[in-house]
Formats: sequence, C-alpha cells, structure tokens
Amino acid sequence: MERFADPHRLEQMIEGLDRFTATPGQGTTRLTWSPEFRGASDFLRAQMEAAGLTVREDAVGNLFGRLEGRDPTLAPVIVGSHFDSVPNGGRFDGPAGVVTGIEAAFLFRQHGLTPDRPIEVIAMIEEEGSRFGGGLLASRILTGQLDPADLNTLADDTGVTAAEAMTAYGLDPARAGEAVLAPGSVHAFLELHIEQGPVLEAQGEDVAIVDRVVGLSQLKVTFRGQAGHAGTTPMNARRDALVGAVTALAQLPDLARRIGRDSVLTVGKMEVSPGGANVIPDLVVFTVDIRAPEESVVRQLIAETTAVIQAAGGNGLTTEVEEQLFVAPTPLSAALHASLSRHAGALGLKHRTMVSGAGHDAMIMAGFAPTGLIFVPSRGGISHAPEEWTDYAQLARGVDVVFATLCELTGVKHRRNMREHFGMHGSPIQKSFPDEIV
Amino acid sequence: MERFADPHRLEQMIEGLDRFTATPGQGTTRLTWSPEFRGASDFLRAQMEAAGLTVREDAVGNLFGRLEGRDPTLAPVIVGSHFDSVPNGGRFDGPAGVVTGIEAAFLFRQHGLTPDRPIEVIAMIEEEGSRFGGGLLASRILTGQLDPADLNTLADDTGVTAAEAMTAYGLDPARAGEAVLAPGSVHAFLELHIEQGPVLEAQGEDVAIVDRVVGLSQLKVTFRGQAGHAGTTPMNARRDALVGAVTALAQLPDLARRIGRDSVLTVGKMEVSPGGANVIPDLVVFTVDIRAPEESVVRQLIAETTAVIQAAGGNGLTTEVEEQLFVAPTPLSAALHASLSRHAGALGLKHRTMVSGAGHDAMIMAGFAPTGLIFVPSRGGISHAPEEWTDYAQLARGVDVVFATLCELTGVKHRRNMREHFGMHGSPIQKSFPDEIV
Repeated sequence: MERFADPHRLEQMIEGLDRFTATPGQGTTRLTWSPEFRGASDFLRAQMEAAGLTVREDAVGNLFGRLEGRDPTLAPVIVGSHFDSVPNGGRFDGPAGVVTGIEAAFLFRQHGLTPDRPIEVIAMIEEEGSRFGGGLLASRILTGQLDPADLNTLADDTGVTAAEAMTAYGLDPARAGEAVLAPGSVHAFLELHIEQGPVLEAQGEDVAIVDRVVGLSQLKVTFRGQAGHAGTTPMNARRDALVGAVTALAQLPDLARRIGRDSVLTVGKMEVSPGGANVIPDLVVFTVDIRAPEESVVRQLIAETTAVIQAAGGNGLTTEVEEQLFVAPTPLSAALHASLSRHAGALGLKHRTMVSGAGHDAMIMAGFAPTGLIFVPSRGGISHAPEEWTDYAQLARGVDVVFATLCELTGVKHRRNMREHFGMHGSPIQKSFPDEIV
Repeated sequence: MERFADPHRLEQMIEGLDRFTATPGQGTTRLTWSPEFRGASDFLRAQMEAAGLTVREDAVGNLFGRLEGRDPTLAPVIVGSHFDSVPNGGRFDGPAGVVTGIEAAFLFRQHGLTPDRPIEVIAMIEEEGSRFGGGLLASRILTGQLDPADLNTLADDTGVTAAEAMTAYGLDPARAGEAVLAPGSVHAFLELHIEQGPVLEAQGEDVAIVDRVVGLSQLKVTFRGQAGHAGTTPMNARRDALVGAVTALAQLPDLARRIGRDSVLTVGKMEVSPGGANVIPDLVVFTVDIRAPEESVVRQLIAETTAVIQAAGGNGLTTEVEEQLFVAPTPLSAALHASLSRHAGALGLKHRTMVSGAGHDAMIMAGFAPTGLIFVPSRGGISHAPEEWTDYAQLARGVDVVFATLCELTGVKHRRNMREHFGMHGSPIQKSFPDEIV
C-alpha cells in the first residue's frame, strides 16, 4: 500500500499550532484576530515557507501559500480549511485541513513535482463564528457574499467590532474588499475536514468523500399555557406549557428516524419559564434543528414537526412555530467526488460517500468553484471539545487522497514518477481533468 | 341568609393596605421589614385600633391586636395571616386573612359582644420567604422552630442580614427571642387564606374548610448523555440526554392523575445543557414537585417517578434522582374543621373540605395549637400575580364563618343576640367548645 504523507510531520504541525490557544490545558480557544490567532498565523506562515510556498496574507487575514504552476496565468487549485476554533474546542477542527494543504506542498517538493497550474494552500479565518457570529466568514468574503461594510457592525461579546479587531491585528478594514476573489479565478477548491461524527470510526472506514452538504432548517417553537401554583392547581385544571411541549418532543426523534438515516432532528436549546420548582410553567421555548440531504425531506420534516406541535396544543395551550433558518442542500462537484473516490480506491483505502451534516467553507465555495470535501475519522465522533481526536496515520491517509487528486488536477500525473505511484494499482487515470465536468 | 361582615370595609382595608407596595402599577411588592412593610404595619395598627383592639408589635415585627376577654388570664384565640408579599404579587395573599381578623373585631364591637377569652388578631411577617428565603418565618419563630441567632446569618439578595433589616425597621434583633410563644399560651389559631387554585370558583362554592396540608417532596432529576454535533451524529448513534428526559417526562403527569385528584406532580424548572441549537444535549436537570394528602401516596409517587426515570436511562444515558425535600402531610384540628364546616353550613354557604396544596403559617401553627384554615375563592385560580383577585362579597362570606367560629370558641354564642344569628337554621350548637377536641 503506497503511502505519501508523513504522520509525524502532520503531528508536528497540528501540535505546534495547538500551542496558540487562549485556554492552555482546557482545549483550543483561538478566536479570529486574537493574539493567539496571530501566533498561529505566524506559525503557519513558517510551515508554508518551509514547504516551499510563497506566502501572502490577504486583506482580512486569510493566509495563502502559493506553489507556482508551470503556467502562472492559470487559475489555481485552492486547498485548505480554517484555523479559528470554538471556545474550548479541539485541535483538528479546521487545522486538519490547513496542514493537509501544507503537507501536500511538502510532498510536491519531496517528489520534485511541479504542477501545471498553481496550487494555493489556504488558512481561513472565522469559520466557526465563535467571535462574530454567523460563521463561514472567510468563504463568504472571498466569494463576495458578505459586504465588507458589515465588518463595521459585526461585534464580539465584548463589543469590539470586526473592523476594530482587524485593526488591532494589523489589517486595514477599509481594504477588506480586496479579499474578494474574481469570478473564475479559482479552478477548484478542496477541503479536508474531520468528520465530527462517529460513522467512519464505527464502520472501520478510512475516509468519506462528501457528495453534498445537508439542507438545514432551524425552528423556534413556543408553547404557552397558564402559570399556577404547583400545590393548589389540580392536574385536570392545568394548562401546563411543559406538559404540552413534552407531548410533542416525545414524537420528534421518530420523525427523523422514520424518514431515513441521513436525516437528523435535534432539540438542543430549551427554556422553561417562569422556572420555579413550585410553579406550573406557562412558557416553553425550544429549537428544532432539522437536516436532510434532500430539500423535499427537509420540507417534509418541517411540515411533520409543525403538525406534531400543533396537535400537542389545544386544551388551553397555544403553539407557535417560527422558521428561523432554511438552507437548501448544497451539491458538491460530482467530478471531484468521482476523482477523490477513485484515488481513495487506488490508494487501497476503505472509503464511502457521505452527506455532510455540518456546514463547512466548502459549502460556500461550492457556489463559486468546483469543490470537493473529504472527511477523516473523529474518535468517538467527538468534536468541539478538548477530546476531539484523529489519529495522525488516519489524517495522513486523507492527505494522500488530497495529494493524489491535486496531482491529477494540476497535470502532474502525466509525468513518470507519478505514473509509478498511481499506475501500480492499474486504475484508469484520465489523461486530463476536464474543466467542464469538475 | 344572614350576613355579618361588611364587604365595603374589607375592600377599604385591602385596597388601603395595597398602597404600600414597592412596585405601584405592577402588583404588590412588600418585602418584610422594608419601608413599605412599615407603612403597611402602621396602616394595620390604625385599622386594629379603629376596631377597638389594643395593639402591640412583638420583637420581630408581628402585629398583635388584642380584644380582651372576660377572663384575661385565659389563652387567646389567635386569628390572622401574613402581610408580606412575593415580588409583583397580589393584594389578597396574606392580607385577606389579616383583614378577616380585624373585620371580626369590628363585628364583635358592632354587635356589643365581649368574648369569654381574649382574641388576638395577628399580622405576620415573612411568610413568603421572598426576602430571606425559606418562608413561614413568623410562625417558625413564634413556635420556637427557628433559632433567633439565625437572624444574624439569613441575608437577602443584596447581602443585608435579617438582623440588619430588623434594626433599620426599628427592632432590636437581640430581643428576637422574646417573640417565642410559651407552650399552651394559644387556645386556637384560625387563618383565612385565598385558595390560590381554581377549584372553588369552578365548583361554584363559597368556602373550603381545610382538613390537612399536603405532604410534599421535591426531587432533583439528572439525565447525562453525550454531547455531539446535531448535523454529524446519526440518530441511532446518539446519547441525547433530552430525548431520555422527555421519555420520562411524558409519563410523569399520569402517575399523579392515576393515583387521584388530590395528588399533583409538577415539573417547573428544567435546564438543558450545553444549550446550543446545533448541539445534542449531554445534560438535563429538572425538578419534580410531588404533593399528596397521604404520606404513603407521596412515597408511592416518589418511588414510581424514580422507576420511570431509571427506565428512561440506559442506552448510554445515566440518571440520578435526588430527594431534596420531604415534608409529611400536616393534619389540622378535626374539631376546628368540624366547627368551621358547621358554621359555614349554618350560614347557608356552599362549602367543601379541601386539602391545602400549599404551605401556610397554619401548617406550622398546627404543631403548636389547635389550628383551623379556611379558603375563599381565587378568580381563575391565579395567585402570586397582580391579577390575583377575590370578590369582596366572597371574602365577606369567609369572614362570617371565622366570626361565627370565634364566637363559639370564646363562648359568645350563649348570649341572646348570637342565638338569633346562629339558631335560626336550627343547627345544633354545642354549649361549649371542649378544649380536648379542638
């Protein structure tokens, strides 16, 4: 089994990056444009330079490391992910994809490969939205979906605006618009990310090739009843908002289970008011997070959830369902899915197609350039916690798939040394990677 | 239908007292030993004096208005309730019972009656516990259940101790022990209170005569699971603490319903953690308030609740049930229950026996002296809210029952004018009210 990426080098990069946390010993806390973020950016710059990349920081703090192509005028393939974190999160969510790009650059240099078209490794800002909310900030700015003027109004919990934080970081917020990428300027976007779920580990699989990002809806559900004294109001004279809410809540998980394994429904936030142990609740508010690969299924789950909630009302209870968020499923590039899958197979890896249940920068980039997304296993499915873990050997397998795909995308596969690498399994490798089907 | 109490005078007293609130226009807020509390105390003192009572303030701020008996050495009958309030509460919870005592004194004077034994109208402090927690402070001090030294450690939300608040109110906390009543010094205790529930109004009844105060348990229930990403964790790979909790919660109300109408079970407080809309909950904590007239039923409900919760655990969820509070049911005086009921009937009132689902000073006093408790209707069952309401004509009916019972307890019924009043319905009135059966 041919192996390319160096698990030890990946570990050095991940662990080196993880020193830049605001909460040492309590997980990774690296908010965008913070001092730790600058430290991490400097560390990544050094790693990129060591891999032979030419580094620039764009107008909002995204770091680009460029491996020049034989034809510098061709649109680059961009590969990478984000390097901010949630509070007290893990070291892999985001950085795994950044070091994948850097490791791929090391491999190009190690094997003496020069790509036909440029490769740019990207380390992106503010994907989590942990500082300024919303998330996916870098990809939304790069693709022109966020007005740079909004940086003056977005503020963190302490009231610092994004523009102020940028200035403190050494950037000029007035120039943020320069970060927007020109249409057609990206040949393809590749991202490796940890799965953040338990499926690969449970199935003993090495990688998942994502074919789409789920559609998502978030509902805000309200049950209103009548408060009353817990001791003096007989059971049959109550209008208990929580009893009504529970009647609905008990039916919700089965809606998703019945429709299929790729559909999920989660109630993560719930508030019971007035919240006295001896007071019958008059108000219950909870969220319903619904995700499914097909828009029709998301719509169906919204409708069935709403019906269950309305049926649990009545008898003096009123209900309200408010759709706070709807994002249609995002298909990724079928050609890149095919290419990533083929290379995973050629590398002898156990791989599967997966729907991404989480949003990633790849979801935004998919509307701008052909985009591929690959997952590596998360131990125990745990993420956004200090225990988040991916074995470095497993991460290296994912990097190999990205590396092989980059070689294909940049024409490297035609040269002799790569034929040795990829030809050995006898898998039919296309002569070129047609732009029109990426 | 003979009527004694004057609804207009009751209204004047209730509305006059309600001027002393810290939140004008937003309900009654009268915390113990506050400036509003002093104003209310002065107002009540004036009303008591107008009714011919001799007023004294005891060492902790309880106000006693004494109607001397023919034999001043006999133990008095005490009648009254509290005059503190919850924040933004109503005007009747407590004051209804205080003005009942004062109105009864007016009636004694109006009808030229002199009781054989003294009657003392009491206006009590800190029943709600809204300032210093715990509640029932006056009755616990009067009956020797609270160490006066605790007044130095009990503190309100702003850090002011009870002793400091007493000093500011003009009391000497070092003398608080003087408020403790000597054993045998109270012949009987009578309290009128609003029902704080919907039963009397719904049944079209005038008064309820309480025969016991429910037993009460409060459980703290914990479900622990595993947090996870709402989008990346398949339904069948979840350990969702809320899904487990809901399975249990859905079964709890029926436990109380099945056991009987006087048993109630309430989940009033519930917290779901970590509380992100896109995070599977790993921790749910809720309270279960259980009340029933019989201790065995309280115990049975605790056991069945615990069993339901444990059965909802497993599958990766752990559960914990902690009994935070247990109060056995408190029987009130059977003789006073009989007497109050008989007089209600003689007055032509629709009356019923009721178990009190809430704790009142009468619950504490019942361990010290023969105690009777009578409820008048609460409109809509609403209490602890500005909308709390009892029609003054209905309150007057309750006062009539208390007045008639006071007459009996103090030997007044033997005289001609009272025979006219109570004899007309032909109800057999006992010659004396034997101490041994009170």
